[in-house]
Amino acid sequence: MAEAPDEVEQPDARPRVSGTERMTSFSDGVFAIVITLLVLDLRVPEYHRGELLADLLDEGASYLAFVVSFIYIGVLWLNHHALLRLVRATTLALSWINLAILFGAVIIPFPTAVLASAFTHGDTDDQRAGVALYALAAALMSAPWLVFFGYLRRHPELLGRGVSPEHVRTQRLRPVTGLVLYGLSGLLGWFVNPVLGLIGIIVMIAYHAVTSEGLRRRVGRR
Amino acid sequence: MAEAPDEVEQPDARPRVSGTERMTSFSDGVFAIVITLLVLDLRVPEYHRGELLADLLDEGASYLAFVVSFIYIGVLWLNHHALLRLVRATTLALSWINLAILFGAVIIPFPTAVLASAFTHGDTDDQRAGVALYALAAALMSAPWLVFFGYLRRHPELLGRGVSPEHVRTQRLRPVTGLVLYGLSGLLGWFVNPVLGLIGIIVMIAYHAVTSEGLRRRVGRR
Amino acid sequence: MAEAPDEVEQPDARPRVSGTERMTSFSDGVFAIVITLLVLDLRVPEYHRGELLADLLDEGASYLAFVVSFIYIGVLWLNHHALLRLVRATTLALSWINLAILFGAVIIPFPTAVLASAFTHGDTDDQRAGVALYALAAALMSAPWLVFFGYLRRHPELLGRGVSPEHVRTQRLRPVTGLVLYGLSGLLGWFVNPVLGLIGIIVMIAYHAVTSEGLRRRVGRR
Amino acid sequence: MAEAPDEVEQPDARPRVSGTERMTSFSDGVFAIVITLLVLDLRVPEYHRGELLADLLDEGASYLAFVVSFIYIGVLWLNHHALLRLVRATTLALSWINLAILFGAVIIPFPTAVLASAFTHGDTDDQRAGVALYALAAALMSAPWLVFFGYLRRHPELLGRGVSPEHVRTQRLRPVTGLVLYGLSGLLGWFVNPVLGLIGIIVMIAYHAVTSEGLRRRVGRR
Repeated sequence: MAEAPDEVEQPDARPRVSGTERMTSFSDGVFAIVITLLVLDLRVPEYHRGELLADLLDEGASYLAFVVSFIYIGVLWLNHHALLRLVRATTLALSWINLAILFGAVIIPFPTAVLASAFTHGDTDDQRAGVALYALAAALMSAPWLVFFGYLRRHPELLGRGVSPEHVRTQRLRPVTGLVLYGLSGLLGWFVNPVLGLIGIIVMIAYHAVTSEGLRRRVGRR
Repeated sequence: MAEAPDEVEQPDARPRVSGTERMTSFSDGVFAIVITLLVLDLRVPEYHRGELLADLLDEGASYLAFVVSFIYIGVLWLNHHALLRLVRATTLALSWINLAILFGAVIIPFPTAVLASAFTHGDTDDQRAGVALYALAAALMSAPWLVFFGYLRRHPELLGRGVSPEHVRTQRLRPVTGLVLYGLSGLLGWFVNPVLGLIGIIVMIAYHAVTSEGLRRRVGRR
Repeated sequence: MAEAPDEVEQPDARPRVSGTERMTSFSDGVFAIVITLLVLDLRVPEYHRGELLADLLDEGASYLAFVVSFIYIGVLWLNHHALLRLVRATTLALSWINLAILFGAVIIPFPTAVLASAFTHGDTDDQRAGVALYALAAALMSAPWLVFFGYLRRHPELLGRGVSPEHVRTQRLRPVTGLVLYGLSGLLGWFVNPVLGLIGIIVMIAYHAVTSEGLRRRVGRR
Repeated sequence: MAEAPDEVEQPDARPRVSGTERMTSFSDGVFAIVITLLVLDLRVPEYHRGELLADLLDEGASYLAFVVSFIYIGVLWLNHHALLRLVRATTLALSWINLAILFGAVIIPFPTAVLASAFTHGDTDDQRAGVALYALAAALMSAPWLVFFGYLRRHPELLGRGVSPEHVRTQRLRPVTGLVLYGLSGLLGWFVNPVLGLIGIIVMIAYHAVTSEGLRRRVGRR
C-alpha cells in the first residue's frame, strides 16, 4: 500500500482525507495577498497644482478604513492559524468550508472601499449603507467558521492529537458572537447612527484580536 | 554522483526530470493570487450623494460573476491539487503544460469582468458575447489538462507510486467533458439565449466541483 | 503531552509561544506581493497619437520613485530576514508587532505614488507634501522595529540559540537612526527644499542597505 | 557553535553566506505574482450598448501582448529555477543581484501595457516607441544575470556540489546573447519597422524557452 506522505488511508465508505499542508500554504497566500491589496484603494487624489496636501488630508476616512481592515485581516489570519492547528487532516467538504472562510477574507477590500467612499464623499444615507454593508459582510463571514467547527464535531477523526471535541464545542461561541454582534452593529448603523455602527464594528474586531490569544491558550492546555 | 534531493538522475537520451516541489508551490501561489485578484473588479460605483445603496444594488450581476468565478478557481485549485499528486517528477515539457494550465486560471478575471459588465450595462447582444467569451475561455482551458494526461500516459516513469496508467486514461474523461460541454454552453448562449448559456456554465462548474472528490477517491484506492 | 512540531510548551502563567514558520512565510508573501504591486503605478500615460514617447519621458519621476521604492522594500525584506533569524519562537504579542512591521511595508506604494505624482504634475508645495509624507511613513515604519527589539529584550526565552541579549540591544540603534534621520529628511524637505529632503531619504535607504550586512555579520559571530 | 540549519559558518574576512531557501521562495512568490498581475491590463473596453463584441475584437494587440509576456515570465521563472540550482548558499551581494533579476521580471507588465496600447491606439511612431521600450527592458534585464554568473565565478565556494566553474562560464553566453539580440530587435523596431522588431523579440523569447532545457541538462551532467 504505497501512499504519499500527506495521505491517510480511509475505508472506502468514509470521505477520503488528506494532509493540511497545501490547504495551509494556500490560505496563508490568500491572507498575505488580500492584506497587501488593501493599499490599492489608497489612491493619489485628483488635485489642482498646489492643493495636494489639502486633498490628502480630506481622505482621512480612507486611511482609517485601511487601518481597520488591515487589523481585521490580521485578526482573521491569526484566528485561521489557530483554526488549522485543530485539525490534522482535511476532506473535500472541509476544503470547501475553508474556501468559504477565505471567500470572507478575500471580499474585505470591497466593503472597505465602499465604507471609505461613503465617509469621504457621501451623505448620511450613504454612510448608513456603507456601515450596513461592512457589518453584513463581517456577520456572514462568521457563518463558515461555525460550519467548520460543526463539521469537526461530527468528524472527530480529523482533530489533531490532544484536541478534544469539547474544546471544539467551546470554540463555536466566538463565531456565534461575531454573527450576532456584527449583525447588531449593522442594525445600529442603519437604523440609529452610522458612526455608532462603525464603533460597534471596531469594538468587535478588537474583541476578536484579544480572544485569538484565548483560543490558542486553550488549545495548548490539552 | 552528487544530486540535490529533488533531482532524479536520467540517462542522457531521455528528458531530464526534476521534483515537483517548486512547480507545486508556484502553482499554489498563482491560484491564491488569481482567486484574490477577482475582488479588484468589485469597484465602488460612481454615485451621486445619497444614491450609494441604489447604485450598489444595480451591480448584482458583478457580485454573481465574482461568486461564480471564485468557486470556479476553487474547483480548479482542488483539481490541480489532485493532478499534481499523480506525478512524482516533472520535465521541461510537463512544466510548460502546467504553465498552460495556469494560463487558463490566470485569465479568468478577464472574462468574468466582461460577463459582469455585459449583464450590468449591456444589451442582449453584449450578454451573448460575454457568455460566449466565458464559455470559450472555459472550454479552451480544458485543453492543457488533456495534454497533461496524454503526456503522463506516454511517460509512465513520471507517475507517483501506486498510480496506474489506466487510472490516468480514465481521468482524461473529465477535461473532454469540459471541452465539449463548456463549448455547448457557449453555443447555447450565443445562438439561443445568454441566460441559458450562463446556466450551462454554472452547472458545469458545479459538476467539476463534485467530481473532484471522485478523482481523489480513485487516486486513493490504488 | 502531544504537541505539533512547531509548538513549545510553556507554563500557563507565561504567554503561549509557537514556532516562527508560518510567520516567516506569511511575511515573505507580503514582501513579495508589495514589491510586485509597485509596478501597478507605472501606467501608460494618456497620449495623443504619435506622442507616446514624449509622454513616457515626462514620467521620469514615476520611474525614479518606482526604483527607489523597489530598493527600499528589498532592504526591508533583507532586514526582516535577519530579524526573524534572531528569534526561535513567537507569541501573540510578537505576531502583532510583526504585523505592524508588515503594515509599514504594505503602505509603501501609496507614498510612492504621491511622491511620483507630486514631482510629475505638482508644484513646489505639492513636492514638499510628497517628500514629507514619504519621510513620515519611513520614520513611523521604524517604530515597530524598535518595539520588536524591546520585546525581545524583555523575553530572552524567545531568542534563537547563540543570540545574546547584548546583541539585540545593539541592533536597536538602527531603527532609532531611521526614526531620527527620516524625520530630519522630512523636515528638510518641508521647510528647506523638497529635492534636498528626497536626497536625504535616498541616502538613508542606501545606509540601511549597507548595514543589513552589518546586522547579519554580527549575528553570525555569536 | 550553534547555527541555524540554513547557516554556513565563514571566516570573518569573507562575506557571510546563508542558505538559499528564503531567496528561492521569495523569488517564486514574485514570479507567481507578476505572471498573474498581467491580467489586470486586460480591461473591459468602454463600449456602447450592443458593441461589446466589436470592441473586444479591437483589442487583439492586448491579447497578443498578454500571451507573449505570460510566456516570457514563464521562461524567466524556469531559467531562474535552473539558476538557483547552481548555488548552495547566498551572500548579501548575491541577494542584491537576485533582487536586480527580480526587478527585471517585476517591471514586465509596464512595457507590455505600453506595447499593447501602441498597437491598439497609436500610430507607427508610438509603435516604434513601444517596441523599443520592450526591447530595452528585455536587454537590460539580461545584465543582472551576467553579473550573477560573474559573481559565481569569483566565489566558487557558493556553487552547489557537482557544479563546475567551467559550467558557469558557459552559461554566461545566454544573457550575453539576450543583451545583444534584444538590443538589435529594439534598434530594428526603432529604425526599420516596429513589426520586425516585435518579431525579433518573440523569436528571442522562444530561443530562451528552448535553451532553458539546455541549461538544465548541462547542470544534470556534472
